[in-house]
Amino acid sequence: MDNLGSIFLSETVGTAMLLLLGGGVVANVLLTKSKGFNGGWLLINFGWGLAVYAGVIVSYNSGAHLNPAVTVGLWASGADEFMPGVAVNALSILTYFAAQMLGAVIGAALVFLAYKKHFDETEDAGLKLAVFSTGPGIKAYGWNLVTEIIATFVLVFVVIGFGRNGEAGGLAALGALPVALLVLAIGASLGGPTGYAINPARDLGPRIAHALLPIKGKGSSDWSYAWVPVVGPLVGGALAGVASTALLPL
Amino acid sequence: MDNLGSIFLSETVGTAMLLLLGGGVVANVLLTKSKGFNGGWLLINFGWGLAVYAGVIVSYNSGAHLNPAVTVGLWASGADEFMPGVAVNALSILTYFAAQMLGAVIGAALVFLAYKKHFDETEDAGLKLAVFSTGPGIKAYGWNLVTEIIATFVLVFVVIGFGRNGEAGGLAALGALPVALLVLAIGASLGGPTGYAINPARDLGPRIAHALLPIKGKGSSDWSYAWVPVVGPLVGGALAGVASTALLPL
Amino acid sequence: MDNLGSIFLSETVGTAMLLLLGGGVVANVLLTKSKGFNGGWLLINFGWGLAVYAGVIVSYNSGAHLNPAVTVGLWASGADEFMPGVAVNALSILTYFAAQMLGAVIGAALVFLAYKKHFDETEDAGLKLAVFSTGPGIKAYGWNLVTEIIATFVLVFVVIGFGRNGEAGGLAALGALPVALLVLAIGASLGGPTGYAINPARDLGPRIAHALLPIKGKGSSDWSYAWVPVVGPLVGGALAGVASTALLPL
Amino acid sequence: MDNLGSIFLSETVGTAMLLLLGGGVVANVLLTKSKGFNGGWLLINFGWGLAVYAGVIVSYNSGAHLNPAVTVGLWASGADEFMPGVAVNALSILTYFAAQMLGAVIGAALVFLAYKKHFDETEDAGLKLAVFSTGPGIKAYGWNLVTEIIATFVLVFVVIGFGRNGEAGGLAALGALPVALLVLAIGASLGGPTGYAINPARDLGPRIAHALLPIKGKGSSDWSYAWVPVVGPLVGGALAGVASTALLPL
Repeated sequence: MDNLGSIFLSETVGTAMLLLLGGGVVANVLLTKSKGFNGGWLLINFGWGLAVYAGVIVSYNSGAHLNPAVTVGLWASGADEFMPGVAVNALSILTYFAAQMLGAVIGAALVFLAYKKHFDETEDAGLKLAVFSTGPGIKAYGWNLVTEIIATFVLVFVVIGFGRNGEAGGLAALGALPVALLVLAIGASLGGPTGYAINPARDLGPRIAHALLPIKGKGSSDWSYAWVPVVGPLVGGALAGVASTALLPL
Repeated sequence: MDNLGSIFLSETVGTAMLLLLGGGVVANVLLTKSKGFNGGWLLINFGWGLAVYAGVIVSYNSGAHLNPAVTVGLWASGADEFMPGVAVNALSILTYFAAQMLGAVIGAALVFLAYKKHFDETEDAGLKLAVFSTGPGIKAYGWNLVTEIIATFVLVFVVIGFGRNGEAGGLAALGALPVALLVLAIGASLGGPTGYAINPARDLGPRIAHALLPIKGKGSSDWSYAWVPVVGPLVGGALAGVASTALLPL
Repeated sequence: MDNLGSIFLSETVGTAMLLLLGGGVVANVLLTKSKGFNGGWLLINFGWGLAVYAGVIVSYNSGAHLNPAVTVGLWASGADEFMPGVAVNALSILTYFAAQMLGAVIGAALVFLAYKKHFDETEDAGLKLAVFSTGPGIKAYGWNLVTEIIATFVLVFVVIGFGRNGEAGGLAALGALPVALLVLAIGASLGGPTGYAINPARDLGPRIAHALLPIKGKGSSDWSYAWVPVVGPLVGGALAGVASTALLPL
Repeated sequence: MDNLGSIFLSETVGTAMLLLLGGGVVANVLLTKSKGFNGGWLLINFGWGLAVYAGVIVSYNSGAHLNPAVTVGLWASGADEFMPGVAVNALSILTYFAAQMLGAVIGAALVFLAYKKHFDETEDAGLKLAVFSTGPGIKAYGWNLVTEIIATFVLVFVVIGFGRNGEAGGLAALGALPVALLVLAIGASLGGPTGYAINPARDLGPRIAHALLPIKGKGSSDWSYAWVPVVGPLVGGALAGVASTALLPL
């Protein structure tokens, strides 16, 4: 229980940091009169990549999953422990999930505070939602799901690869930077169709925050789409975990 | 005293480097006929991130705070020493502050020299001030303060995290790069509303330089806003130091 | 044979990852309604550079050539073994080539799945082909060949340099990041005329995929140009291997 | 003499690589029908930063100065040896200079070959020259000189800092990446007024190449400005070397 408490705190802090910086860069690019207004996709990719970087740095007591798809992927890969002394089981998985969701809500609420006046002065309700949750360029549930599955597969597959390539991978041992670069890569390359949720907590937590917060002139939280960035990443993460047992031999 | 002299020199040199490169990228993007004119927010984020990188490299004899909010945050986190042999006390804190302010003034003055002709040929007095000091996209003292508090909290909290995650963080041990990436992240994600001072010396020092230097066609130094990027970062840094004792357990 | 099977799997997985992320960023920038539409050349350079990064990470069992020009370059440099226990000979070279081609076709097909709806809604057949294969800004077979030779020479020459500079190069030992930065550099600097194939598998595999896949409204696969990004990189890689024996002394 | 031969080869190869990739990115951004046409200042900064990266990687036998201002700065800092067994004296300094100039001419000529058709189809003679050599945004010899002195001071001062901060700087030991980041920083922040030559060989070598090569429709090589990017960097480098003895204590 002591270990799970430590994991809960660490994942909450890390995921809040992830969403604060990740949601922040979207606010910066989309909300009126922000310094980074219309700053481009690469700026958003850097913002999210480095949001992962900062989140991982402060989440050292839980292995910094920050993402239910990573937790599921490690489970599917056959891992025994998430951390030394923390077995992979229903209780520990739920601990990770709960902390990730809580952290994501907190992080999204902090973005709202940091950009409060810019939310007030932005007219378009769709842009306000986009600071919180993803939405597809072309809505098509099946294909959107395919994109999220592929993108999250890449995330979890390469994360498992970091742990396996040992000497050959070198930088893998350096912790936060490799996964930051990986998320930057996924955003640049596979974020085009759906805006790369690749993380159920990253999308659902802020969507809940969007529904709860007193955002001036906000519109729908688009619940009809909300299942795609939850199911897709969980499926993609699980597939990556299973695939790693065959495709990433030690 | 010998130690404090060494710290004074190191912080002065490092903060001057920080402001020379940080102010420089803003001049490059804002002043007429510069090669990077209108180069975008990501260019500014890289400029400031790498300004921190260079400043930290040359400030090895003082631990490279380069920022009163970092000094205050370390004090609030309960640190005993800033450096081996340099106790945390009023005298050492004031030594850091004084050197940071002096370095910031020097760095800002060097930007003026490097871009002298471009200052001369730029018409807009507001752009000239913006090379020196930050100003909000939407002026609202209370919310601007909130943004600066949150952004500086992230800076100091993650900096303390670098020191705590030990093996897990790896790159943390590499010195200058992690904090450069962190500042790049804060700029991309939380710089939108106020232009991310996140450092009292970074804003107040250059504002003093703006007031003193013979800049052709300069306007007001906007002293009415000057307290926000001083108070906000000091509060955010102190809060991060205190919060770290609970949220970043060893 | 066991070793060659392991190499075949590793190169296939790595090259598929390379093409999935590399083709993906082009799709993101070129296809209508993508989030990164019109996102610029630097975004493309980051996408390809980090595609190499992810590909190298998961290809640790084969040394991560991911590119016939690298395989040829190592052969031309006089290397005895590609990996401990894997001699440089016709069979091992063909194993690398076959896996690289297969991986490239798979990666390109996955890009098609991830961006299916965006392919459907994009009108211009030329843009659809450009997601798969390179084409020159100014078609001139001889000069296009020169560009590909020079760019691939740089790739293979510096890759060999990574292995030789030992202590002096430091980061070289860190594996995936240096070659990612190198490919980013080549794209930024030498990608202008031909779009930097610098890899026969990267260009020919996706071109085959383009010919085979049921892409709505697709046009020609431009087979008349297809030999340039195959011959150029092979020649450039071989020249770099030979040149390294004189210009990169140990 | 054997050592000086090795240094001559290494500096020639490294500076040629520097100019090939550095000149290449400018060609990509300025010449008509290039893929990176109009790609922005940050793209140019990445191109030059990573040109330094690649140049340093292949120049391990000479310490990779690649720049007379670095050679002069090390001399002015009171260094005894450039490399183990290579004393700092007139002969070794001239060996570095000669190789740097030769390499720069070779690299610039290779850019011409790689972008031959794009030179042919570009109308503006000023853009063709800009691929080779720098020119100021606002021509004013005195202030242009000041900018080059400040920018090169930063380069050489921080390079010396890399060697001094030891444990504190960490990444300094990793060789090529820190100086690449530094050059990226200088370009972003201090490249605005003059285009950051910060290296006499980088500017004069390509200017000679511009004068000699059969470039269709080329104009003047602008010899009246040529002394600024030679004298400024040499003065800035020497000042940094001297300043380091006081401002960067061990």
